[in-house]
Amino acid sequence: MVQIDINCDMGESFGNWTMGRDEEVMPYISSANIAGGYHGGDPHVMRETVTLAAEHGVGVGVHPGLPDKMGFGRRKMDATPEELKDYVTYQLGALRAFCDQHGVTFQHVKPHGAMYSMLSESPEHARAVIEGILDIDDDLVYLATDMNIYEVAREYDDLDAVFEGYVDLEYNPDRSLIVEQEKGARDPEKVADRFVTIATEGQVEAVNGELLDVPADSICIHGDTPNAVDILEAIHDRIDEHDIELAPLHEIV
Amino acid sequence: MVQIDINCDMGESFGNWTMGRDEEVMPYISSANIAGGYHGGDPHVMRETVTLAAEHGVGVGVHPGLPDKMGFGRRKMDATPEELKDYVTYQLGALRAFCDQHGVTFQHVKPHGAMYSMLSESPEHARAVIEGILDIDDDLVYLATDMNIYEVAREYDDLDAVFEGYVDLEYNPDRSLIVEQEKGARDPEKVADRFVTIATEGQVEAVNGELLDVPADSICIHGDTPNAVDILEAIHDRIDEHDIELAPLHEIV
Amino acid sequence: MVQIDINCDMGESFGNWTMGRDEEVMPYISSANIAGGYHGGDPHVMRETVTLAAEHGVGVGVHPGLPDKMGFGRRKMDATPEELKDYVTYQLGALRAFCDQHGVTFQHVKPHGAMYSMLSESPEHARAVIEGILDIDDDLVYLATDMNIYEVAREYDDLDAVFEGYVDLEYNPDRSLIVEQEKGARDPEKVADRFVTIATEGQVEAVNGELLDVPADSICIHGDTPNAVDILEAIHDRIDEHDIELAPLHEIV
Amino acid sequence: MVQIDINCDMGESFGNWTMGRDEEVMPYISSANIAGGYHGGDPHVMRETVTLAAEHGVGVGVHPGLPDKMGFGRRKMDATPEELKDYVTYQLGALRAFCDQHGVTFQHVKPHGAMYSMLSESPEHARAVIEGILDIDDDLVYLATDMNIYEVAREYDDLDAVFEGYVDLEYNPDRSLIVEQEKGARDPEKVADRFVTIATEGQVEAVNGELLDVPADSICIHGDTPNAVDILEAIHDRIDEHDIELAPLHEIV
Repeated sequence: MVQIDINCDMGESFGNWTMGRDEEVMPYISSANIAGGYHGGDPHVMRETVTLAAEHGVGVGVHPGLPDKMGFGRRKMDATPEELKDYVTYQLGALRAFCDQHGVTFQHVKPHGAMYSMLSESPEHARAVIEGILDIDDDLVYLATDMNIYEVAREYDDLDAVFEGYVDLEYNPDRSLIVEQEKGARDPEKVADRFVTIATEGQVEAVNGELLDVPADSICIHGDTPNAVDILEAIHDRIDEHDIELAPLHEIV
Repeated sequence: MVQIDINCDMGESFGNWTMGRDEEVMPYISSANIAGGYHGGDPHVMRETVTLAAEHGVGVGVHPGLPDKMGFGRRKMDATPEELKDYVTYQLGALRAFCDQHGVTFQHVKPHGAMYSMLSESPEHARAVIEGILDIDDDLVYLATDMNIYEVAREYDDLDAVFEGYVDLEYNPDRSLIVEQEKGARDPEKVADRFVTIATEGQVEAVNGELLDVPADSICIHGDTPNAVDILEAIHDRIDEHDIELAPLHEIV
Repeated sequence: MVQIDINCDMGESFGNWTMGRDEEVMPYISSANIAGGYHGGDPHVMRETVTLAAEHGVGVGVHPGLPDKMGFGRRKMDATPEELKDYVTYQLGALRAFCDQHGVTFQHVKPHGAMYSMLSESPEHARAVIEGILDIDDDLVYLATDMNIYEVAREYDDLDAVFEGYVDLEYNPDRSLIVEQEKGARDPEKVADRFVTIATEGQVEAVNGELLDVPADSICIHGDTPNAVDILEAIHDRIDEHDIELAPLHEIV
Repeated sequence: MVQIDINCDMGESFGNWTMGRDEEVMPYISSANIAGGYHGGDPHVMRETVTLAAEHGVGVGVHPGLPDKMGFGRRKMDATPEELKDYVTYQLGALRAFCDQHGVTFQHVKPHGAMYSMLSESPEHARAVIEGILDIDDDLVYLATDMNIYEVAREYDDLDAVFEGYVDLEYNPDRSLIVEQEKGARDPEKVADRFVTIATEGQVEAVNGELLDVPADSICIHGDTPNAVDILEAIHDRIDEHDIELAPLHEIV
C-alpha cells in the first residue's frame, strides 16, 4: 500500500471578499495550506479555516506570502533573505496560534506565489527561510514545489521535506509546469489517472509524451479549477480502487 | 524583600520610521511589551526587539493593537469581541514565533491603546480576549492596566493577571490616570519616590493628596517621556537603596 | 415628464478579489458610486470602472470609505471631523484623476458604510466633509442618503445636494431603512412599482402601510441583491411605460 | 541672470511616525515633492505639507511611490507599466485634491525610490507613466532624475521635463550617483560651490576630478542629511552673491 497526501491552498478570502470554495473542497483533501494574512487571509478567515480543517481531520500548514495584498503576493520584490525569513516567521506564528487555540496540530509550511519563486531562484533566500523554520520547530514539514527548493531542503538533515506533484497542470519535459492564464476545467478521469501514476509509480507523462520522475508524496490540487470538486471525487474513486491511502503530511514523513 | 517588574512599550517602529529609544531604555526594564505589527512594529522590528530584550534578560510579551496603523491603534472602532480575540491571537502568535526562533521565553500580553480601552469598557470583549489567550497557553501573564480589566481577569482561576501602576503620570482620586496631550519631562526624584511607595506600600498619592491603593506588581514606564532614561536611573538608584528586587513578570506570578 | 437618476455602488473589487457584478449592472444605471481604494477598490479597479461607466454614459462619482479594508469600511471608528474630511479629499482626488485621464466628467460624492453613518450622526463631521468638497469643486453633487445629512447639506447654498430613495429595502414609518443581514431576492414588479411611486409622486409606502414623503431625485439600487438585473429590467420597463426619463445626477441638479 | 529650482522630498511622515524636518527645510526650497500615501505620507500629512508649502510660496508636486510601505517604496517589484501608471495617477490625483482645496497650484511629478529606478531601467514603464500624466494635465512638469528618464521624457513634445542635479552626493564619471548607506554631514561650502557651478555653468566635478555636463534646472537637496539646514543656508548665501534667482519649476519651464 502507498500513502499519499493531497494538499490545497485555503483561507485566501479577505474581509468581505470571498475566494475559493473552501467548504466544498476541504472534505476531499488531507493537508490545507492556509494563507497567513499577507497575500490573502485575515485573522477571522484563519480561525474559520483552521476550524474547518479540523472538522475534516485535515492537516494544517501555513501558506505565507509577500506583503503585497494588492498583487495577491504574485509579484516578485527585491526583498533580502532575512526579510523573507521574517515574513515567514510572522505568518507561521500567527497561524500556529490559531491552531493551538483550537487544539489543532500545526503541521507544515508551503510558501506562496512570488515568494515561492524567489526561494526557488535563490538558494540563499531558501536557506534563510528554512533555517528560520527549523529554529522555531524542527517537526514542521516543508512542502517543496520544485526541485530547486527540494534540493536546498535536503541539505538539512533535521528538516522533513516533502516534494509535491501536480495533476491538474501539464509538465514540460524539464519538469517545469505549464501555468495557464485562465484556469479551465480539466477531464476528471485524466487527472485521476495521473494522480494514480504519480502516487504508485512516481512518474508523470510530460506534455511531449516523455515519462518524468516525480518523487512526490503529496499532490497539489487547485481549488479554483472550475470543476475541482469533480476532479477530487474522481481521485477519491481511484484511491478506493487502488491500494492507496490518503494521509496528511505529518503521517507520511 | 519585595519583587517588582518594570514594563515598557517597545518595538513600535515601522519600516523606515523610528519610534522610541528602545536601545537606551531596554537596560533598565524587566519586561518589554512588543508591538505585534498592527498599530506598530513589523516582522523585522519584532525580531530585532525580541533579540534586544534577550540580550538584557528582559521578559518578552506582546502588545497587540487594533488594525489601524494610520491612527496608531488609538481610535476605538466597532469591532466585536470575537474580532478583538482574533486580532490578539494573530499578533500574539506572530511575536511568539520570533521568541521561539531566538530561544526566548514568551511571557505576557498587554493590549495597546484603543483596544485596551475597549476591553476596559466591555467585560464581554475582555472575556473573549482572555479566553482566547488561555486557550493558547495558560502560562501567559495578563498585564492589567486598570481595575475594570483586572476584575474581569480575576474571574479566571487559571489566568495569571498582574496589575500595573504608573509613576510618570498623575492619578485622579478615582484611580484613573491624567493623560497629557504633550508628554513633558518629569522630576526623576519624585517619580522614583512614587515608584518606591507603590512597590513597598502598594499606595500612591493622587493629584489631590489623597492616598490610593494600587495593588501593582509591575510599574509601567513611558519610553517617550523626554527624560525617560534619567527617570529610570533614579528608579534604579532607589531599587539599590531599598529592599526591592527587579524581576520580570514570569518570576513574580 | 419627470427625470430621475439610478445610482449603484461600483468598483468594490480589490486586487484578485472580485465583488459585485459591475459589468452586468452598469448598462441599467445612470450614476456609479466608485470606491476610492479605502474600504474597497484599488487603482486598477478604479480605472477599469471609470472606463466601464464611460462606455455606458453613466455619471461617475466617488464612494469614499473609512481606512478599514478588513472591515470593508463598515465599522465606525473614533475619527475627527478633519480626519474624515481628509479621507474624502484623498479618495475624491484619486478617482477624479482617473476621470480626467479618460475624459470622463467627475460628478458626485456619496460616502460609504460607517463613514456615512458617522456623518449622519454628527453634523460637525458632515459639515467638515461638505466644506472640504466645496473647497475642491462646488460643481460636485452631494448624494444624501438620509434626512440628517440632507438637512446639513441644504445649509450650503452653493452645494448641489440630491436625496436618494430606496426601492429594494423596506422603510420604517420614521423613514429609516430596514437593513437585512442576508440580502434576499426581491419581487421585481413590486420594486418597480415602488420606483414609479417615488419617481412620480415622491412617496413610498412604509412597512406599516403608511405613505411617506421621499423627496428623492435618485434611486439607489443594491447591485448585490441576488436578482439585481431582473429588478433593473423591470424598472426600465416602467421607465418606458411612464413619462420618466433616466438621467445622471449632473443633469438633474 | 540664471533661474534655478531647489527641490526636496517632503511629507514622508506617516500616522504617528515623523520623518524629516519639513518645517525647518521648507523656507529654503522652491519646490516640494510630497509623498502620496503609498511609500510614505497619509491624508493628514499631505494636507499639512501642502499648507506648509503654500505658506512659503513653494511649488507643490507629487512624489509617488510603490505600494510597499514596509519597505518605504525602495524595493523594486514586478509591476507592469500599466500598474505603475495607475499608482502614479492615484497618488497624483489625491495630492492634487489637497492643492485644489487649499488654493495651491499643483505643479509637478517626481517618482520615488524603486519606482524611479524601474522607470529609469524600462522605457516602456516610463512611457506609460508619462502618457498617464499627460492625459490628466499636460501643464504638469516632470522632474527627471537621470538621463534615461530625461531622454524618454523628451520624446514628448507636450511634456515639460526638467532635469535635476545633485549637490549633496558625489557623481561617478558616468554621471551616476554614489549613494551612501548612512547619510553623513557634508561641508556646506563645498556643496554650495557645487550648487553654483551646476546653476551657472551646467557642470559638476565627478569623484575622479573629471568635469561632467549636468543640464539641470533644478537641484535636489536631501532633507535627511544631518546638516541639511546649514547646507541650505550656505546655498542661499551664494544665491545672494551670484546672479542666481531661485524659482519653482513652473516658473522655469
